[in-house]
Amino acid sequence: MVYDVAIVGTGPAGLAAALTLKLHNKEIIWFGSAELSDKVGKSEKIANYPGVPMVSGEDLNDAFAAQAKEMELEPKEARVTNIADLGDKFMVLADNETYEARALLLSTGVASAKGMEGEAEMLGRGVSYCATCDGFLYKGKTIAVFCGAPRYEHEVEYLAGIAEKVYLSAGYPNCGVDLPNVEKIAPVKSVQGGMKVAQIVLHNGTEIPVDGLFILRNAVAPGTLVPGLATDGPHIVVDRKQATNVPGVYAAGDCTGRPYQIAKAVGEGNVAAHEMLEYMAKK
Amino acid sequence: MVYDVAIVGTGPAGLAAALTLKLHNKEIIWFGSAELSDKVGKSEKIANYPGVPMVSGEDLNDAFAAQAKEMELEPKEARVTNIADLGDKFMVLADNETYEARALLLSTGVASAKGMEGEAEMLGRGVSYCATCDGFLYKGKTIAVFCGAPRYEHEVEYLAGIAEKVYLSAGYPNCGVDLPNVEKIAPVKSVQGGMKVAQIVLHNGTEIPVDGLFILRNAVAPGTLVPGLATDGPHIVVDRKQATNVPGVYAAGDCTGRPYQIAKAVGEGNVAAHEMLEYMAKK
Repeated sequence: MVYDVAIVGTGPAGLAAALTLKLHNKEIIWFGSAELSDKVGKSEKIANYPGVPMVSGEDLNDAFAAQAKEMELEPKEARVTNIADLGDKFMVLADNETYEARALLLSTGVASAKGMEGEAEMLGRGVSYCATCDGFLYKGKTIAVFCGAPRYEHEVEYLAGIAEKVYLSAGYPNCGVDLPNVEKIAPVKSVQGGMKVAQIVLHNGTEIPVDGLFILRNAVAPGTLVPGLATDGPHIVVDRKQATNVPGVYAAGDCTGRPYQIAKAVGEGNVAAHEMLEYMAKK
Repeated sequence: MVYDVAIVGTGPAGLAAALTLKLHNKEIIWFGSAELSDKVGKSEKIANYPGVPMVSGEDLNDAFAAQAKEMELEPKEARVTNIADLGDKFMVLADNETYEARALLLSTGVASAKGMEGEAEMLGRGVSYCATCDGFLYKGKTIAVFCGAPRYEHEVEYLAGIAEKVYLSAGYPNCGVDLPNVEKIAPVKSVQGGMKVAQIVLHNGTEIPVDGLFILRNAVAPGTLVPGLATDGPHIVVDRKQATNVPGVYAAGDCTGRPYQIAKAVGEGNVAAHEMLEYMAKK
C-alpha cells in the first residue's frame, strides 16, 4: 500500500502532526519509538507548555504516549536509514524494509552531539546506521559500534554475534552489553579511510583499525536521509509552512532550528500536517 | 515604568509567550481578558492538542487560566486601541491609559467577521474602539454601537448614559442591555460619511443617521493598531522568527494566518518570546 504520509520521528512535532492527520482520516506510517521521545522524557521540569502546568518530562512524555494510544496511533519501531524521491511518492527504507508514502514529514530532532568527523563521507563505505541491514557484511571481521541509547543494545549484541571483534562506544553511562568479544572504548572522534573504512580515532588519540563502524542513534543527520535536502548546519531549511526545498517533504520540530522547545515543535507539527493535507488535495 | 514586553491578547499564543517571558524574569504587561480566550472557550472538542487529550474548549481554556494564575500572570483587562513607536520603546494606549514597553507581541487573534465597510477609513472620524476614551465627545448626540461580547455591555450602558440615543447591534444572542434610550438594530453593514461619520447602513438596507459609531470587540484590526505594520488581508506578515516588518514588534497566533489552531498559536508564542529575549539582549 501507499501511505498518505510517512512521519519520521515520535517527538512532540511528530505527535502533533500524527494527531491532526489521523483526525483527517489519513493513512500514516509513523516511525520512531513506542516511548515517543527520549528528549522530552529526560527533561527535568517543563514550566512553559500551555495546558500542562509544571510537569516533569517523564510525565509529559507519558501523557503524549497515552494520547497517541487513545487515538490508535502506533509508532513503527524501525529506524529510517534512507529515503528515495520517486517523483509522485517517496520510498522509505527502515530496518531493511521499504514503505511508500505520498508525502513526508521529517521530525527527527537534532542530534545534541555533532556527527563524528568523516561520518558523512564514509557513509555506505563502511559506516552504517543499520545493524540488521548491513551486519551480515562483517562476518568474522572487526567493527566499531556507537550505541546511542539502551534500546540499541540488542543490536550491538546482534552485531557481536556476527563480527569477530566489536569495539563499543556507548553514548550513556552503564551500558549493559557484556560479551567476551565486545571491548568498551572511549568516545570516538573520527572515522577514516579511503574507499573503505580503515580506522577510527578516539578523543584520547588512540587509533583502532576496523573494517566498519555502526552508528546506532536516534537522530540521523537529515541531510543524509533525503538527497538534495537543503540544510543549514544541523538544521533543515523550511519556510513558514514547514515546507523544505523538496516538494512533498516537510519538516518540524528541533530539526528545523531553535528554540528547541516542546511548544514550538507541537506548533510546527500541526502546521506541517495542515500543509500536507493541502499538498495531497492538490495532487 | 517601562515594561520589557507588552503582550496584546490572552489567547494561547499570548499565554505561551507570557509563560516563557515570565520564566526568564521579564517584566511584562499582558492585555486581554481574565478568562483568556473566548475562542478557545467556545470550541466544542479539541482532539489534536498534544498533552491534553480530547478536551472541551471550556476545560482547556480553564486549564490555561489556572496555569497563568499559578505563574502569577494576571491579564490587564483593558482594550488596546493604539500603539505608538517611539524608536527605542513603544507607547501602548489601553482604556485611556498609557503603558511603555521595549518590545511588543501582537497576539490579537483574527476577527472571524471582516470589519465593517468604511470602518478603517472612518476610524478617528467618528468611529471609535474605546467607549471610555471617546464617549464624552457624544454628550446629547446620537450614536450606534456594535457590542461584540457580553463583557462590553457595561460600556454600552456607559455610552447610553452620555448619548441622547443609542442604536445597538449585538454580535451574539440575548444581549442584556435594556435601557429606554437604547434601540436594538439589525447587523451593521457599513459606516459612511465625509470628514465625520454621517450614517450607518444595515444589512437589511436601512439607513440610520448617527454622529458616531463605537465598535466594541476583542480583535482590533492589527493594521490600525501599529502604524506601518505590514499585513496581508486580515493577517500580520511575519517571518520564521515571528518578527514583523517593524523592529521590536512580533506577532503570533491566528493573527499571523492559518491554520487557526491552538498548537500553532502556542508554538508561535513560544518562538516569539525567545526572539524577543534575543532582541532585548542585543539592545
